[in-house]
Amino acid sequence: MYSEINAPIRTIMTPGPVEAHPRVLRAMGIPILGQFDPAFLKIMDEVKEMIKVPFQTKNEQAFAIDGTSRSGLEAALIGLIEPGDKVLIPAYGRFAYLLGEISERAKADVVYLEKEWDSIFDQSDIIQAIKEHQPKIVALIHGETANGQMQPLEKIGEYCQENDVFFVVDTVATYGGAPVKVDEWGIDIAIAGTQKCVGVPSGMSLITYNERVEKVLTSRYQKELGLSKDFRNERHISSNYLDLSQLQRYWSNERINHHTEATSMIYALHEGLRLMIQEGIENGYERHRVNDEAIQAGIAAMGLKLYGDLETKMPTVTPILIPEGIDGEAVRSMLLNEFGVEIASSFGPLQGKIWRIGNMGFSSRKENVLHVLAAFEAALVFHGAEINRGEGVMAALRVYQEHK
Amino acid sequence: MYSEINAPIRTIMTPGPVEAHPRVLRAMGIPILGQFDPAFLKIMDEVKEMIKVPFQTKNEQAFAIDGTSRSGLEAALIGLIEPGDKVLIPAYGRFAYLLGEISERAKADVVYLEKEWDSIFDQSDIIQAIKEHQPKIVALIHGETANGQMQPLEKIGEYCQENDVFFVVDTVATYGGAPVKVDEWGIDIAIAGTQKCVGVPSGMSLITYNERVEKVLTSRYQKELGLSKDFRNERHISSNYLDLSQLQRYWSNERINHHTEATSMIYALHEGLRLMIQEGIENGYERHRVNDEAIQAGIAAMGLKLYGDLETKMPTVTPILIPEGIDGEAVRSMLLNEFGVEIASSFGPLQGKIWRIGNMGFSSRKENVLHVLAAFEAALVFHGAEINRGEGVMAALRVYQEHK
Repeated sequence: MYSEINAPIRTIMTPGPVEAHPRVLRAMGIPILGQFDPAFLKIMDEVKEMIKVPFQTKNEQAFAIDGTSRSGLEAALIGLIEPGDKVLIPAYGRFAYLLGEISERAKADVVYLEKEWDSIFDQSDIIQAIKEHQPKIVALIHGETANGQMQPLEKIGEYCQENDVFFVVDTVATYGGAPVKVDEWGIDIAIAGTQKCVGVPSGMSLITYNERVEKVLTSRYQKELGLSKDFRNERHISSNYLDLSQLQRYWSNERINHHTEATSMIYALHEGLRLMIQEGIENGYERHRVNDEAIQAGIAAMGLKLYGDLETKMPTVTPILIPEGIDGEAVRSMLLNEFGVEIASSFGPLQGKIWRIGNMGFSSRKENVLHVLAAFEAALVFHGAEINRGEGVMAALRVYQEHK
Repeated sequence: MYSEINAPIRTIMTPGPVEAHPRVLRAMGIPILGQFDPAFLKIMDEVKEMIKVPFQTKNEQAFAIDGTSRSGLEAALIGLIEPGDKVLIPAYGRFAYLLGEISERAKADVVYLEKEWDSIFDQSDIIQAIKEHQPKIVALIHGETANGQMQPLEKIGEYCQENDVFFVVDTVATYGGAPVKVDEWGIDIAIAGTQKCVGVPSGMSLITYNERVEKVLTSRYQKELGLSKDFRNERHISSNYLDLSQLQRYWSNERINHHTEATSMIYALHEGLRLMIQEGIENGYERHRVNDEAIQAGIAAMGLKLYGDLETKMPTVTPILIPEGIDGEAVRSMLLNEFGVEIASSFGPLQGKIWRIGNMGFSSRKENVLHVLAAFEAALVFHGAEINRGEGVMAALRVYQEHK
């Protein structure tokens, strides 16, 4: 017989999943309501409105999808893509290739614009590629967790809006931690997750899209066979589970039966979004910014080097070059097993080359930053790294003093 | 500003989502662990093993998918179906058409074997149809919540195994509430959900499949582009999110990065499965059976009629004919608003004709049965139905006395 869960308490400073606020954890203990219980529908309606706040959008459509972040990316892309459609994917890190993988599976004609992972694109280069390739869709990562870079978007969005190109943006790693201005930046569909800067457990994706997208979805809408035998559509979306045209109608006042909404996750999301709105999203950005400044100051003071262009580093991830001769995984193991601190490794060409310290959601707290820096120094010293001892935490403390 | 959730306490006697055990609700309050934290991997491994118990299977492959039940149905079907493959779907209720909808979207050549919804198929009729149509896949609902019927499977399974046909079975409404014998019945893929007889909140699908299916999946495996640029496969599965060949490798010791596992839902599932195993799955079936007997006795004693063939009624749903002249929705509203009791309506041709009382998971408790019968009688009397007053609860009590 398996025993009950005895989970150790961790300080999670990775790019997700991150710690959940006690109020979020408690919200999941609220007893179940039926999916069409008016009391539950009211909660869904509130979630719908609250999702829009960190997206900074007036879009009618915003809701949660019962799947992890990538379910939202797939829903967004397959909702727009029809076989043969051209999709332009500028890639400055790992997750652009996830957008590509999904688009290729949707039988799109995918064009990659590739570069080194150490910096972002100049927006004019992407606009130039749009002019050259004339895609139907441009799909882009706003904040790339693999390398910690954050891509400016407003000029690309403006060009897309003026030239009838759909602009799909993955804001999974930034939503709530850095400004995401869906309307102002001309984003047609933005997708986020719960397990990063929202500080809610993994398992839901958040999405918003404008009327231009809604029009496409409506033209592809097919009512489910179990509900109507006549309402067929040759251009229907390939998936039933991730069909935005159906999901939208489940979340609307039509309440057309689709899946059974994930009750407890919706409770958690409701409380997580409430916490963000209570703090004020601008205050939330500032908290992430200050904690990021402290992390960067601490790492620099130790004498370690950061990876990539610091001008465009996102505030929610700090990539650190592993010093020569140090076994990155051994340091991570010591952090986890001795200090209960989790930091991340990375993907692809950066695997084994960098560590990543996350700074997201409820994990983005002063005490976490100080704890991870102190533990990190000790683990580095233990493994023989030559660093400036005693400087990291001091530098971080000075940042906090300045912002008092 | 939205206020905190003030959810009313409901007695949920629908075919899902049902009430969650307090231990399940409490498990979701356990702090977050990272997705590759050894402590979390141990929990995933335990979940994998425990999922197999109510499936009564020795399959190597069994895991959870981060989506509601229908995400598992879609993953199963798109994992096997390639464009043009013939899928035979015997339909004796609403959810067969969901299997059809998903299969059609996967570009299968779908053949329906249809009948009235009041009873199940004779197994020999389905075998006859397999002989006639020679499908690659037979996809079937084990327990149909829309009408409460439960289809015997063992002869169909035996025939499929002997004739190289894949047998895909939706056990969403029976898993944990009635015997599901994956190995003995020759089922290739079985799919369940959490929000019914497992008594865990909605949001996860449970799946198991045998080596025959694994072989197909392995032949279609494509490593994700963000992880490898070379590992392409022309026969790859259409979805990335619901790609079983990738999910299997995430849940295996290879731990190949896919989504970020839904931490708190896994905790809930771990505790829900533990509760089932602690009770003993045979004892769980017996509990559902006795409570079903009490519900049926109570409804009959009131003078109401049940819908469909009682010989093949599943123990987890009781469909009741709405008496002529009674507004079914008015009775349901009174139950919810005055008694805090939720029962269900139905779909398609049965909408407005029947009510459905669910009897699933933690909701399948004596006190719930007695409460719903007492409330139901009162709501019926209030709405002018001519029923035998005072008999329903008495009949149910007598059933419980007999089983003492």
